[in-house]
Amino acid sequence: MLQAPRGTRDFTPGEMQKRRYIEHTMATTFRSFGYGEIQTPTFENLELFTAKSGGSIIDEIYAFTDKGGRQLALRPELTAPVIRCYVERLQMEPKPLKLYYFGNCYRYDRPQKGRYREFQQAGCELIGADTPEAMAELLGCAFTLLKNVGLQNIRMNIGNLTLFNRLFAHFKLEKPAQKTLLPLIDKSLFDDLRVALGDCDLSGEAGDQFINLLQTASLDEIKEFFHKDDIAVQELTTMETVLDLLRNAFQVTDYEIKLGIVRGLDYYKGIVFEIDAPVLGAEKQLCGGGSYELVSLFGGTEVPTAGFAVGFDRTILALEAEGFTFPSPALDVYIIPVNPEMVLTTITIAQQLRKEGISVDFDQLRRGMGKSLKYAAARNALKVIIVGLKELEQQSVTLRDMKTGTQEIVPITRIHSTLKHP
Amino acid sequence: MLQAPRGTRDFTPGEMQKRRYIEHTMATTFRSFGYGEIQTPTFENLELFTAKSGGSIIDEIYAFTDKGGRQLALRPELTAPVIRCYVERLQMEPKPLKLYYFGNCYRYDRPQKGRYREFQQAGCELIGADTPEAMAELLGCAFTLLKNVGLQNIRMNIGNLTLFNRLFAHFKLEKPAQKTLLPLIDKSLFDDLRVALGDCDLSGEAGDQFINLLQTASLDEIKEFFHKDDIAVQELTTMETVLDLLRNAFQVTDYEIKLGIVRGLDYYKGIVFEIDAPVLGAEKQLCGGGSYELVSLFGGTEVPTAGFAVGFDRTILALEAEGFTFPSPALDVYIIPVNPEMVLTTITIAQQLRKEGISVDFDQLRRGMGKSLKYAAARNALKVIIVGLKELEQQSVTLRDMKTGTQEIVPITRIHSTLKHP
Repeated sequence: MLQAPRGTRDFTPGEMQKRRYIEHTMATTFRSFGYGEIQTPTFENLELFTAKSGGSIIDEIYAFTDKGGRQLALRPELTAPVIRCYVERLQMEPKPLKLYYFGNCYRYDRPQKGRYREFQQAGCELIGADTPEAMAELLGCAFTLLKNVGLQNIRMNIGNLTLFNRLFAHFKLEKPAQKTLLPLIDKSLFDDLRVALGDCDLSGEAGDQFINLLQTASLDEIKEFFHKDDIAVQELTTMETVLDLLRNAFQVTDYEIKLGIVRGLDYYKGIVFEIDAPVLGAEKQLCGGGSYELVSLFGGTEVPTAGFAVGFDRTILALEAEGFTFPSPALDVYIIPVNPEMVLTTITIAQQLRKEGISVDFDQLRRGMGKSLKYAAARNALKVIIVGLKELEQQSVTLRDMKTGTQEIVPITRIHSTLKHP
Repeated sequence: MLQAPRGTRDFTPGEMQKRRYIEHTMATTFRSFGYGEIQTPTFENLELFTAKSGGSIIDEIYAFTDKGGRQLALRPELTAPVIRCYVERLQMEPKPLKLYYFGNCYRYDRPQKGRYREFQQAGCELIGADTPEAMAELLGCAFTLLKNVGLQNIRMNIGNLTLFNRLFAHFKLEKPAQKTLLPLIDKSLFDDLRVALGDCDLSGEAGDQFINLLQTASLDEIKEFFHKDDIAVQELTTMETVLDLLRNAFQVTDYEIKLGIVRGLDYYKGIVFEIDAPVLGAEKQLCGGGSYELVSLFGGTEVPTAGFAVGFDRTILALEAEGFTFPSPALDVYIIPVNPEMVLTTITIAQQLRKEGISVDFDQLRRGMGKSLKYAAARNALKVIIVGLKELEQQSVTLRDMKTGTQEIVPITRIHSTLKHP
């Protein structure tokens, strides 16, 4: 038997209903924030991703050579493609430019729970604005997006890579040391970090202070540490304005400061953030983003850029773990003709209801009543219409409520109004 | 500068608005016909497509070997993946099973007008029903789908591969001859076909009769020719029932019989059809489909299967050629704070309106009034709200209609109701 490739999935109508619900809610939210949708190709020139993330990314990328000898890659993420599109086509558009996207991404990775080789992301890029109100809105939009899909309990962590870099400078941790430390910080492995700091001649009190600053949620503590550093003080002032707006204007209060957020240090800068769903335990991060610099790397004129991405699979897992009730994929009406002579009338009724936006199916296998009712139940039909000879003589049909089992005789001309106002 | 790969496209918000409008309308139509959505992976094992279409398809397929040595292919179409998914996962579902899909497909082809290396298709598969009412509904659904998106002038051509094969048998045209003739029939190159028929010892009156039967729109003429062929007579009777239902129940009258429709002869059978938009000239086919046999080829228990696919790009081209007005991507409200002190109030108003489903943006660059109004116009904002000091003292703002240029002072508490009922 032919099978789907390893690490990929088929989505059945019940699963698609969930995904489309999330997509629809997110798209509505993005549009309410003034974002417009963009779509880029599923594959790009491999160079686009190696330019952004270096050659090491090739190991987990679906790279291939096409028949024309071009090195292509199925996209691993959507920020690089959207910025490539901006540089290639949209640089002259009025700023700020607010773009959102939905798209499948690809990762050649060992398949495991919640990690697939093809997975869907939603996200946005804000191009040409970095005022505190613009940054606060970006964070507010990410939070609102996940609230609107129905999540009860989410937490935002807010970091700052400018401050993070100043921290390295203060403790005299140079690039080679950073390379060792970053993965440990990223994974919050603080015991291992302490050992590694010792190897970098940063042990005892200084090491404790470094680790404490990565973990503390107290902005005052951070301000106290940086009070003689002009760059840091300025960054902290801006960040406080962003946080004030986030709290007071966007009504987001479920956040914490966390300097230990590591994102791609080569192109992220300034404010970065993550949103977690605690209900998911270890694999709880749903969303990540911040401000970054990629435009000039791709050959464009530098402008401020920031954005975030949300994973569909974890969002669904979090909603399920919270017991969220997704809209159900019910069929509004199933029509059963009692014999083949009733087919013309059956279809005529079906077509009239379909024009009103009602989902309708009818027995196309000329089965008996019992089998047809069983099929209607399996399809989650809300109502069944039975087209029988006796009722049809009076231009009527039988309307059955599948939940209660009650039946009534309804004139054909009044089926639609009866369905709308039972 | 980094560019999108050859033959692929980026879609800007204005273009996405058109594509999403079509997708939404088609999805609503499919659901009204009782179809449920399915999604399969973007790539499949290459074998899936060579099993269906033979090795020759490899030339125009995006085939690649992944790091695990697997031969994969970006899907060139969606029927094979959906049937593969049915065989792998859905064989036990109650029948009939009605599945629709949207998905990108890939073809390694010389890029040209209206033909791209990545292109979107919509379509459906009907599994487990082949009664005349089921077939009539499939054709009716395809026609309704294209009517609902707004096309004025479309024509359906209906063929029948069982009759087509009987025609070959009557004229004693064996497989090798068929192989020469099929491409000519497919492209309606009847002059070339006449010459080729001569090479197959079918010239003069017999050749004329053969060509005439491929072209005639008269079912009576076809019936007359086949009247002694039991298989053909039975197929014609079924087909007439389908056509009666299509006309009388599904109200589709813009169709013609055309025996010369060639689809993949190896797996299509019985009724096949195409829908054209004459406004597009030579490249006018928007939709193709019919009944086929693939389930047993993929290792499943054979059931009747039929379906159709619609191309997005030609559907958009046809709508544009017919002068269709797509919904416009307007921004409902743009808010301008007259100075940075008004930002908090600005965002508070924005957030309230967003909760009501209104799309709102606000000046995030602290520009002057003139520049902000120009930006609002470039964004197609319908209304602009100006948050000024004097008005704010009275808990009011200025509301400007961007079409007429008229302004009024509106209390903040009444902005939403004023927008809804101006």
